[in-house]
Amino acid sequence: MQTYNPNDTICAPATAPGMAAIAVLRLSGPGAFDIAAGIFIPKNKKLSLAKTPSHKVSLGQVMEGEQPVDEVLLTKFVAPNSYTGEDMVEISCHGSPYIQQKILQLMIDSGARMASPGEFTMRAFLNGRLDLSQAEAVADLIASNSEASRDLAFSQLRGHFSKRISDLRQKLLEFASLIELELDFSEEDLEFADRTQLRQLLGDIDDEIDRLRESFATGNALKQGIPVAIIGKPNVGKSTLLNALLNEERAIVSEIPGTTRDAIEDTITISGIAFRFIDTAGLRESDEPIESVGIERTYEKIRQASIILYLFDLSETGLEEIAETIRDFRDRVGEDDKRLILVANKIDLMEEIPHHFRNLVDLETVFVSAKRKENISMITDSLVQSAVTHPEERDATLVTSSRHYEALSRAAESVAAVRQGMDDGISGDLLAIDLRGALYHLGSITGEVTSDEILGEIFGRFCIGK
Amino acid sequence: MQTYNPNDTICAPATAPGMAAIAVLRLSGPGAFDIAAGIFIPKNKKLSLAKTPSHKVSLGQVMEGEQPVDEVLLTKFVAPNSYTGEDMVEISCHGSPYIQQKILQLMIDSGARMASPGEFTMRAFLNGRLDLSQAEAVADLIASNSEASRDLAFSQLRGHFSKRISDLRQKLLEFASLIELELDFSEEDLEFADRTQLRQLLGDIDDEIDRLRESFATGNALKQGIPVAIIGKPNVGKSTLLNALLNEERAIVSEIPGTTRDAIEDTITISGIAFRFIDTAGLRESDEPIESVGIERTYEKIRQASIILYLFDLSETGLEEIAETIRDFRDRVGEDDKRLILVANKIDLMEEIPHHFRNLVDLETVFVSAKRKENISMITDSLVQSAVTHPEERDATLVTSSRHYEALSRAAESVAAVRQGMDDGISGDLLAIDLRGALYHLGSITGEVTSDEILGEIFGRFCIGK
Repeated sequence: MQTYNPNDTICAPATAPGMAAIAVLRLSGPGAFDIAAGIFIPKNKKLSLAKTPSHKVSLGQVMEGEQPVDEVLLTKFVAPNSYTGEDMVEISCHGSPYIQQKILQLMIDSGARMASPGEFTMRAFLNGRLDLSQAEAVADLIASNSEASRDLAFSQLRGHFSKRISDLRQKLLEFASLIELELDFSEEDLEFADRTQLRQLLGDIDDEIDRLRESFATGNALKQGIPVAIIGKPNVGKSTLLNALLNEERAIVSEIPGTTRDAIEDTITISGIAFRFIDTAGLRESDEPIESVGIERTYEKIRQASIILYLFDLSETGLEEIAETIRDFRDRVGEDDKRLILVANKIDLMEEIPHHFRNLVDLETVFVSAKRKENISMITDSLVQSAVTHPEERDATLVTSSRHYEALSRAAESVAAVRQGMDDGISGDLLAIDLRGALYHLGSITGEVTSDEILGEIFGRFCIGK
Repeated sequence: MQTYNPNDTICAPATAPGMAAIAVLRLSGPGAFDIAAGIFIPKNKKLSLAKTPSHKVSLGQVMEGEQPVDEVLLTKFVAPNSYTGEDMVEISCHGSPYIQQKILQLMIDSGARMASPGEFTMRAFLNGRLDLSQAEAVADLIASNSEASRDLAFSQLRGHFSKRISDLRQKLLEFASLIELELDFSEEDLEFADRTQLRQLLGDIDDEIDRLRESFATGNALKQGIPVAIIGKPNVGKSTLLNALLNEERAIVSEIPGTTRDAIEDTITISGIAFRFIDTAGLRESDEPIESVGIERTYEKIRQASIILYLFDLSETGLEEIAETIRDFRDRVGEDDKRLILVANKIDLMEEIPHHFRNLVDLETVFVSAKRKENISMITDSLVQSAVTHPEERDATLVTSSRHYEALSRAAESVAAVRQGMDDGISGDLLAIDLRGALYHLGSITGEVTSDEILGEIFGRFCIGK
């Protein structure tokens, strides 16, 4: 990001690479209109680009000297009413990679340079169009692959999370100012900052930070997909079940052609929530028993799961044996915050389903035939229920970024130090240091405090053209 | 295409699939504005979609009921001033495949349906925005991967080719009308159509069709890339030379990041012309000698090439031997319309380059070191020269579509039949049949005459969203 210079006019393709009906090229910066005027001739000659109002689309041709290159639509955005907050032009050309490259080359020859990854959004941030957490939400929104992850990113983009953090920080800032003021008058031993109120506020901030940090597990799971493990002995039907689950969803998704090409292997979205199936020792290919070699690695994987589907072959396994296995499993893994669902498979081979089963194992149990795809929807219902155990969380502000989690943790440490310091009766200047620490870490989330390093790290992960 | 119904409102993504900064969704048809108004709320509440003028971009949110789905830019195009000639809306959303799918789903739930491949362009054709040959040029333009192929497609899109065909057809149509008129008055034995003039016109049309048909070889080569074969004995450095040629171009192309991902293997573009290196018996991997097994298959490939680079190891091969090999090669393959370039490799191992070489073989000869990348540009210069042997052709109207070539050939047959019929003095009604045939085939190129079958074949090859 060291090359960032707001006097540069930058350009890049904004749409995905590849052949398509159209592609959109972006040009932003002080020279955007001059560069565009030099390579674009509107069909309506009377409407020169200079006279074109903001947010107006013009039909015309991109020219290389006297030679027309392509027929395009050009949209003009006059600063500050653009994505970056700068003068901006978007050219919608025919979606040939060659034509895109050609037009970009013409822009570059006219004085633009290729944008770095995320540079458009970074300019939006630096021009005050977005705060840092909102800028990060743009990347999350683009990467969102489920209702839940889109919800979270969009809520963050609309500033819900930023507002929460800013409010906390604003309150803390007031106290910090008073403490700093005390330092200026330190010889007079004044206390501008009401210690009882400060203690109260620090307690509130601590609670809020704790709540936000706790929400990271849910937020991250919803963003990345909730990890699910399917386990069981060989031949109980694990691969068949996984395929049945995946096929059920693929069938729904593929109703809209042209939009499924990026489907992620082994992830399904049910009721807007993504579930990510963890590969427990080659779950899909081999039927390695969890009792055999590699058992520790398998348990390691199982521990990462939020939901475990424990699969039995009901036609082969006695109820007592199942109960025994489950007890053993619970002893070894513990359940903590996991959800364990017992899936009794191969009911197609049974004459009747044992009614007293549930009492025996005291666990949510689903009876299915993976092979005949019977009752598969009962599993998906259970998965959704497990994911929204705390339905109130879905409306709350959730932390989804590990950077934010990290900053909140650092802020919590500083707040704890302030509280400890007050208990120990340390001096105002030492208190002020820890307060500044808390302010810094909260501010780094929204970008009120920032550094080139943070910016480089955040925007370096963006795609070019955003 | 049987599902085509102009009362339907159709939707599709118009940009390439995959994650990107933005994606553009298209909505076209009589319900486009109502559907868009139902799912879009402009940020400026006063500017409802109904009041928004054509070609105006509005910032706002796509809504699913009360829930915002994404922040988007919406552009309104009022019929007939749109790509399809219908009411049209383009929504530029965040480039997440999930979000695109979600918005398309909302459009479909509101009464739109997914567009068939090429349906937007087919509507443009049916609404008279483009003729058929121009519509085909849109697909060619999107697929263009070099200056030359873009040039050809763009020229066709601008109607140069259509105009030529239409003019020919118009003249023929006048005569056909007169002949038809004669048929109405056949009892009176009138000759409205001047036979001498008709003969003259048929001759002119024949010449023009011939010229156009002949241009197909050049046009097709420029569109697809000019086929080049590199041949020679094992270890003369064929792979090294190919890599040197490819690398030279890759280095240029990769100056613009983000635009090279679709580079086609073994195709290089020099001075705007694409050269396609034919895989002569695994040219790249193995060094199978052309004298060994599979020799016939190799010669088959060589016959497809327009340019042959015959490579020798100058440090190992005597001049007499080279001359002998070349004579033998010319005898076997013939040169026809091919261009044979002799490449004397490994000059790095030579103390001096033999001066009398050219006289010996009477062939264009380039002395290079593929390994040290010396004089590689002399080969690329030769390639470009070979491609533009007939420079006047580059400005002329070239046939690039096999469908057009086919139609021209059928038209030529009909014209020949008319001329033969006139020579044989056949009756006006028989003459009229062949004239109608010629008119039909010429008209099928521009779409003045068309059928569902032709339309289905042409537009079925388009991508969705175009």
